Amino acid sequence: LRNIKLTIEYNGTAYKGWQVQTKKACSRAKTIQETIERVLYRMLGERVRVAASGRTDAGVHAKAQVANFKTHSLITPEKLQEGLNGLLPGDIAVVEAKEVDAGFHSRFSAKSKIYRYTILNRLCRSAFLKETAYFCRYPLNVRLMRQEARSLRGTHDFKAFQATSKKEKKSIRTIERIDIIRDHELIHIDIEANGFLYTMARSIVGTLIDAGRGKLQRGALKKILDSKDRKMAGPTAPACGLWLMEVKYD
Amino acid sequence: LRNIKLTIEYNGTAYKGWQVQTKKACSRAKTIQETIERVLYRMLGERVRVAASGRTDAGVHAKAQVANFKTHSLITPEKLQEGLNGLLPGDIAVVEAKEVDAGFHSRFSAKSKIYRYTILNRLCRSAFLKETAYFCRYPLNVRLMRQEARSLRGTHDFKAFQATSKKEKKSIRTIERIDIIRDHELIHIDIEANGFLYTMARSIVGTLIDAGRGKLQRGALKKILDSKDRKMAGPTAPACGLWLMEVKYD
Repeated sequence: LRNIKLTIEYNGTAYKGWQVQTKKACSRAKTIQETIERVLYRMLGERVRVAASGRTDAGVHAKAQVANFKTHSLITPEKLQEGLNGLLPGDIAVVEAKEVDAGFHSRFSAKSKIYRYTILNRLCRSAFLKETAYFCRYPLNVRLMRQEARSLRGTHDFKAFQATSKKEKKSIRTIERIDIIRDHELIHIDIEANGFLYTMARSIVGTLIDAGRGKLQRGALKKILDSKDRKMAGPTAPACGLWLMEVKYD
Repeated sequence: LRNIKLTIEYNGTAYKGWQVQTKKACSRAKTIQETIERVLYRMLGERVRVAASGRTDAGVHAKAQVANFKTHSLITPEKLQEGLNGLLPGDIAVVEAKEVDAGFHSRFSAKSKIYRYTILNRLCRSAFLKETAYFCRYPLNVRLMRQEARSLRGTHDFKAFQATSKKEKKSIRTIERIDIIRDHELIHIDIEANGFLYTMARSIVGTLIDAGRGKLQRGALKKILDSKDRKMAGPTAPACGLWLMEVKYD
């Protein structure tokens, strides 16, 4: 059985996410996983299960989601990539396909992940970025946001930024870095961590936006983190601004 | 009569262009100009003619198209912008509205324009840039493209890069600069000129792409320019990669 690693780019707008999270009714038609598995079945004549580094929510995008699957097929990685890109819808693209060691698992072998949250921070909506950035018309103070973000770095219990609907038992994670970058009208918040709780990235971003708008006192992020209470944190920022940028392996 | 200047961003994918160029049948529904004039009529109760700095073709985008119109209305520019952005479709946004001198004309007052052509230069198509960049899977040699582009700078007769279907009498223009910028998998070709002949930017780009692929001899761009013969130049690059970035005034 061969083990194939895929690096996948997708615009999540039309999808329920990588994999369905809950049984709640959702207007979006399908998941990214299903869409890829269906095309692989067509190509390989074999039902395979494509496991990703992690789920992404409905509307979240990826520049480089990593997934892998086991197959009996002898197809070359080049032919596989070409075939997938020919048959997949335009909003999903396979940027790399390669054969890897049997022991490689996209999720369990991952050392860290980098998410980027993109905010369009200007007075007027964009004709281009509606699906791929969060539009915030209030001027954000990036310096303040950076100061507040500092207290999130390192190893902490991130319970305060975890969705109340879906709690994981262990809520300790390590944030290696949070960078806040201004690029003209855009603000990017890059977070690298060894793992993310459900909606953790978006809850942190929503709270940092509150800080950037001047709605919080200095040191608020530290207090929120220490409280371990989701009610203390800001709103969960909308999915459209979130991008899975990279999954790191050894 | 007040003179209002609008700076407009649009994704041209769904439009026949700023204004219809020819009477040829076109599957796209409407022009950007019509769409804006219709909304202004709804808002102001007055038929106005919105004149742009120049037409853009079907599928061409703008980050900052400039247009102006005369009105009897006393609406403030702020209210006008807000109203337009509320009523216009999501792929058109008014980034600025202001009242200007009666003598200002978006086209006749323009000193120069900057177009950007964006190429996605990698092996695999993009899940995001289908509408807004031209996908070229052949590796392009940016250094070669820059060398060839040099001969286009300055004042020349650009007849060789003019659409044969629609010739303007005077084909002498001045290119102030051509910059070719590599940004990871993207290549941007920025051209600033005092005016552009019909399809001139895209014909230049198509020829530079041929140069970047190594299909032309050194010095070919100079020879093509001197020939004043459209048949010597490369293909007209697709509209989707072209962006009107800026219109400069005194």
